[in-house]
Amino acid sequence: GERLKAQRGLELRAKSWRTEGLLRMLENVLEVGEKPEELVVYAALGKAARDWDSYFKIRRALTGMDTDSTLMIQSGKPIGVFPTHSGAPRVLIANSNLVGRWATTEHFYELYDKNKIAWGGLTAGCWQYIGFQGVLQGTFETFAAASKVHFDQDDLKGRFVFTAGLGGMGSAQPLAIWMLGGVALVPEVNGERALERQAHGLVQHVTHDLDEAIALCTDARAKGEARSVTWVGNAVEALETLLERGIIPDIVTDMTSAHDALHGYQPLGLTTAQAAQMRSDDPDKLIGLARETMVRHVKALLNMEDAGAVAFDYGNNLRSQARDHGFPGGFRLKVFTEAYLRPLFSRGIGPFRWVALSGDSADIAYLDALTQELFPDDAPVQRWVRAARLHVPEQGLPARTAWLGHTQRTRMALAANAAVARGDIGPIAFTRDHLDAGSMAHPNIMTENLKDGTDAVSDWPLLNALLNTASGADLVAIHSGGGGYAGYMTSAGVTCIADGSEETAGRLERVMNADTGWGVLRYADAGYGEAEETKKREGLGLGF
Amino acid sequence: GERLKAQRGLELRAKSWRTEGLLRMLENVLEVGEKPEELVVYAALGKAARDWDSYFKIRRALTGMDTDSTLMIQSGKPIGVFPTHSGAPRVLIANSNLVGRWATTEHFYELYDKNKIAWGGLTAGCWQYIGFQGVLQGTFETFAAASKVHFDQDDLKGRFVFTAGLGGMGSAQPLAIWMLGGVALVPEVNGERALERQAHGLVQHVTHDLDEAIALCTDARAKGEARSVTWVGNAVEALETLLERGIIPDIVTDMTSAHDALHGYQPLGLTTAQAAQMRSDDPDKLIGLARETMVRHVKALLNMEDAGAVAFDYGNNLRSQARDHGFPGGFRLKVFTEAYLRPLFSRGIGPFRWVALSGDSADIAYLDALTQELFPDDAPVQRWVRAARLHVPEQGLPARTAWLGHTQRTRMALAANAAVARGDIGPIAFTRDHLDAGSMAHPNIMTENLKDGTDAVSDWPLLNALLNTASGADLVAIHSGGGGYAGYMTSAGVTCIADGSEETAGRLERVMNADTGWGVLRYADAGYGEAEETKKREGLGLGF
Ligand SMILES: NC(=O)c1ccc[n+]([C@@H]2O[C@H](COP(=O)([O-])OP(=O)(O)OC[C@H]3O[C@@H](n4cnc5c(N)ncnc54)[C@H](O)[C@@H]3O)[C@@H](O)[C@H]2O)c1
Ligand SMILES: NC(=O)c1ccc[n+]([C@@H]2O[C@H](COP(=O)([O-])OP(=O)(O)OC[C@H]3O[C@@H](n4cnc5c(N)ncnc54)[C@H](O)[C@@H]3O)[C@@H](O)[C@H]2O)c1
Repeated sequence: GERLKAQRGLELRAKSWRTEGLLRMLENVLEVGEKPEELVVYAALGKAARDWDSYFKIRRALTGMDTDSTLMIQSGKPIGVFPTHSGAPRVLIANSNLVGRWATTEHFYELYDKNKIAWGGLTAGCWQYIGFQGVLQGTFETFAAASKVHFDQDDLKGRFVFTAGLGGMGSAQPLAIWMLGGVALVPEVNGERALERQAHGLVQHVTHDLDEAIALCTDARAKGEARSVTWVGNAVEALETLLERGIIPDIVTDMTSAHDALHGYQPLGLTTAQAAQMRSDDPDKLIGLARETMVRHVKALLNMEDAGAVAFDYGNNLRSQARDHGFPGGFRLKVFTEAYLRPLFSRGIGPFRWVALSGDSADIAYLDALTQELFPDDAPVQRWVRAARLHVPEQGLPARTAWLGHTQRTRMALAANAAVARGDIGPIAFTRDHLDAGSMAHPNIMTENLKDGTDAVSDWPLLNALLNTASGADLVAIHSGGGGYAGYMTSAGVTCIADGSEETAGRLERVMNADTGWGVLRYADAGYGEAEETKKREGLGLGF
Repeated sequence: GERLKAQRGLELRAKSWRTEGLLRMLENVLEVGEKPEELVVYAALGKAARDWDSYFKIRRALTGMDTDSTLMIQSGKPIGVFPTHSGAPRVLIANSNLVGRWATTEHFYELYDKNKIAWGGLTAGCWQYIGFQGVLQGTFETFAAASKVHFDQDDLKGRFVFTAGLGGMGSAQPLAIWMLGGVALVPEVNGERALERQAHGLVQHVTHDLDEAIALCTDARAKGEARSVTWVGNAVEALETLLERGIIPDIVTDMTSAHDALHGYQPLGLTTAQAAQMRSDDPDKLIGLARETMVRHVKALLNMEDAGAVAFDYGNNLRSQARDHGFPGGFRLKVFTEAYLRPLFSRGIGPFRWVALSGDSADIAYLDALTQELFPDDAPVQRWVRAARLHVPEQGLPARTAWLGHTQRTRMALAANAAVARGDIGPIAFTRDHLDAGSMAHPNIMTENLKDGTDAVSDWPLLNALLNTASGADLVAIHSGGGGYAGYMTSAGVTCIADGSEETAGRLERVMNADTGWGVLRYADAGYGEAEETKKREGLGLGF
C-alpha cells in the first residue's frame, strides 16, 4: 500500500485547528514512523494507537468533536468524548500505566497479548515524535554543554571526541559533533550499518583501517576542521590503541548498546557472525564475554580520564554491567544528565519543538528567523538553529527542535501565535520530548542520582500533567514504560496548537510558563542551586 | 494543646469560597483524624500534609491565592502557585507516587525518613475524609446489596448475619446490619475492644456466653427484630458451634484482620496474652497456628454455604492465607466487590458525600430532605438517609455520605448549588471516597479479578484525575499506596465547592457527569453488561 502521510494545506477536516492539528500530529508520527502498517512509531513497540479500529475511531472523534469537549484515550484506545469547556484540553491520554507491583515486563505482555494495553514510548502514543531531529539536538546539546563546562567553548572547534555505536541514538553523534565543528571518531562493529549511516549523511568517513581513521582525526584536530569518522571495529580495541599511542581525545564517552549484553554489545575477539552463533548455542557464554569486554571498556575510559580526557557515561548501562562482572570502578564516571543536562533543566531549558501543521517549510524558515529576533544573544540557540537549517533534512511535517528555557518558550509561542493571527504563517503545534525537567521520573537515566534521592518519585510528572491540563494545553499525556521498560519510568507529554486566536494566546502563555516553571521548581526542590536561583529570579514558587 | 477544629461560620479568610472551602476541608480531616498533632488522619501514616511547615504554607497559600491560580502539592508539600484560570482547579495534589520498580515499602520508608514523601491514604492527603460515616455506609451498602441480590429484599429484616472482627473497618458491621433491620452476630476476641465499641453505640449486646449470644440472635431473627450481638471469642469457634447445632445464618462473612497472620489474626486455642507471648518468642509458630485456624475458618464458611447460607469474602485476604497453608478451596467464595459492588459501579453508583462548610447541621438536614425530593423512588438512597439521620453521630463539619450514581450526583450538586444561591444553605463541598468506579486500580480488593484482567491498569484513575481537572473540579488528587501499601494501588480523588454561583453550576455539572460517566465507561470497557447498558442509555462514550 501507499505510505501514510499527514494531511497538508490549510483546509480543515475537523471543526477547529485545535483538533485538526492534533489529527495531523497523529498522522505525522505514522508518516515518520518505523512501521506505520503496524501503527509502530519506534522501538518496535511504541505505538500511535492500540489497533486500527482505535486509530479510525480516534480520527472520527477528532473530526467530529466540538471545541468544548475532550477525547479520552486509554492505552491507545479512545474511550469517550466528554463535554468540558473551551479552555480545557481536547485530548487526554494515559498509556501503559500499571500499579507498581504489577509494572513488570511479564504482566505488560500478558495484557498486550489480550490487546488490553499499548505502550506509547515517550512521544509515539501521544503523537509528538517528529523523527531524527529530536535525538540529534539532544546529542548536540549534550556535547555542546560538555564543551562549555570543560573548555568554556561554545562549539567543539579543535576538539576531538571519541565515542562509539551508530545505533538509533548513537548515529546522531558523528553528525552532532561535526555540526559543532569538532572531530568525531565513532567505531561501530557493524560494517553494513556504518555504510548505511554514511549514505544518510550522518558520518563522513567510514574505513576498516584504524590507522587511517586515527590519522583522519588527528589531522582534522590539528587543523581545527570539523570531521566525522567511523572505524568499522570494536570500541575497546580503538580506545586501547589510542591509549597505547598516547593519543588522548578531549572527550570520551560511549553509546554502544551496553544495556543488553546478549543482543546488543559486541565482545572483543568474536566476529559478528561468531557472536550470532554463540547467541543461540551458548547465550550465557556470550553474556560473560560481553561483560568481560565491558570491564575493559570501562577501564579504558577511566584511563583516558586519568590521561586528561573528559569522560562521561551516556546512559547506556555500561557501568552497571561492568560492576555486575566484578568491576564497580566505573561509577567514578559522571552520568551525562548529572554533568550537563541538570544545569540546563534548572533553567527550564529542554527539548522543545514546533511543527508546521500546514506542511509549509516556509513556516519553519519564518520561525527560525523569529528565534534570531527573539533570542539574538542566546548563542546556543543561534548556533543550533543555524546548523539545523543547513544540515537537518526534512522528515514528515516540517519541524524544528530548539532547547528553549523558562520564559523563552512562552515568548516563542506567543510570537508565533501572533504571526499565525497575521496570516504570516499557518497554524503551528508546540510540543516537547518527555525528557524535560519536570516531566519525567526515570531513575536509571533522567533522574539518576538526584541530590535529594527522589529519583523515583513520580508525583512530579503526574503533577506536570495535571498542571498542563489545568492550564489549557490541547493534549496532555501520562506515559509509563511498557515492554522491557515496564516499571522503569513515568513521564508526561504536552502539545499546544497555535491557531492565532486571542484565547489561544492566553492558553499558550499559561501552559508554557507552567510547563517550564514546574521543571525549575522540581530541580529547586531537589536541591540544585541554579534552579533555586532561577526560581527566585522568575518569581516561581509560592510567592511568599 | 487544644484540639484542632475546622473554621465554622460564613466569614471568609480566603479570597473565595472555593479556596476557603478547601482550607476548611483540610482543617476538618485533622479535626476528625486520629493524631492531629502529628498531622495523621488515619492508618498511622495517612497524613494531611508533609509536615507542619508544609501545613502552614498550604494555609497561607490557600488564604492568599487569587481565584484564577492553582496551588500544586507534592506528597503533602506545597511547591508552587501557578496562574491558571477560573475554570481550572484551585488545588492539584499527587501523593506517594513512585515509579513501578521502586514502589516498595522499603523505598517508601527510605524517602519517608528523609521527609521527601508522604502517604495520603485515600482521603487523608487530599482532605476528603469525614470520619466513620464513610466506612459505615460502605458496609451498609454492601450488606444491602447482598440482601437485594440474594433475597430480593431492600433491608435485612428477619435476616441473620454472621461476621467477625470489631476493628477500624469491622466495627461498622453490627451497626450497619442493625440499621438495615437485621440481626448481627459479630465475635471479637478482644473483650476490651468489644466493650469500647458498645460504649460508642456500635453494638448493642456484648457477652462472654456463646449460648446467650446465639439465643439473642435466633430470638431476634424469629421476631423479625433488629439486634446486634458480640460474643467475646474466636470467630471459628462460633462458626463451628453454629454448624454443629444446625443453626445456619442467612449471610456469613468475615472482617477479622486475616491479612496479617502475625499481628492481626487470633488463632484458636490461645488466649490473647499467650498469643502476645508467642509473637515475641516464636513468631513463625504463631503464624503457622494462625493460618491453621484460617483454614478451619474458610472450611466453616464453605460448610455454611453448603448448608444454604450466602457466603462471601470481604477483602481481608483470608482465602489467600488459607491457600498458602495448603487449602486453596476458599476461592470458591465470591469476593464482595465482584458480587455486590460491581453492579453498582456499573451504574456509576459509589461513595459520594457532601460537607456543610459553614458547620451548620441544618444544611445537612436541608440536603437530606433534598435527596427525598430528588430521588423519591430510589429506595436504597431513602433507606440510607433515613437511617443515617437517626443513627449517625456528627463528627467534624456536618456531612452526609450517599451512594448516588451517574446523573444523580449531578442533579444533587446542582440543586444544592441553587439552594446556596438562594441563601437557603451555606456553601457545600461535594466529594467522594477514592473507592469509586473509575477512580481506583487496586488489584487485591477493588479491581480484583476483573472480567478482562485489567485489574492493575492504572490508566483509568490517572485519566479520571485528568478529566476532572479538565472539567474544572476545585481539587484533584492522584494517590498511590505508601508504607505497607506501596506498589499496591493508585487512585484519584476529587472535590468541588458549591458556592452558589452560575459559573460553579457549570463546573459542577461537568465534573459530576465526567466523574461518574468515566466510572461507567471503565466497567463497560472491562466487559460488564450492566455498565454497557448504562453507557448506551446515558449516551456515554464516543457518541458514534
Ligand atoms: N543517552 C540517552 O538519553 C539514552 C536514551 C535512550 C537510550 N540510551 C542508551 O544508549 C545506547 C545506544 O542506544 P541506540 O538506540 O543507539 O542502540 P542500538 O542498539 O540501536 O545501537 C547500538 C550500536 O552499537 C554497536 N555496538 C555494540 N557493541 C559495540 C562495540 N563493542 N563496539 C562498537 N560498536 C558496538 C551495535 O552494532 C549498534 O549499532 C543503549 O544502551 C540505550 O539504552 C541512551
Ligand atoms: N472490605 C474492604 O473494603 C476493606 C478495606 C480495607 C481493609 N479491609 C480488610 O478488612 C480486615 C479488617 O479491617 P480492620 O480495619 O477492621 O482491621 P483491624 O485490625 O482494625 O481489626 C481486626 C479485628 O479482628 C479481631 N480478630 C482477629 N482475629 C480474630 C478471630 N479469629 N476471631 C475474632 N476476632 C478476631 C481483632 O481483635 C481486631 O479487633 C483487614 O484484613 C483489612 O485488610 C477490607
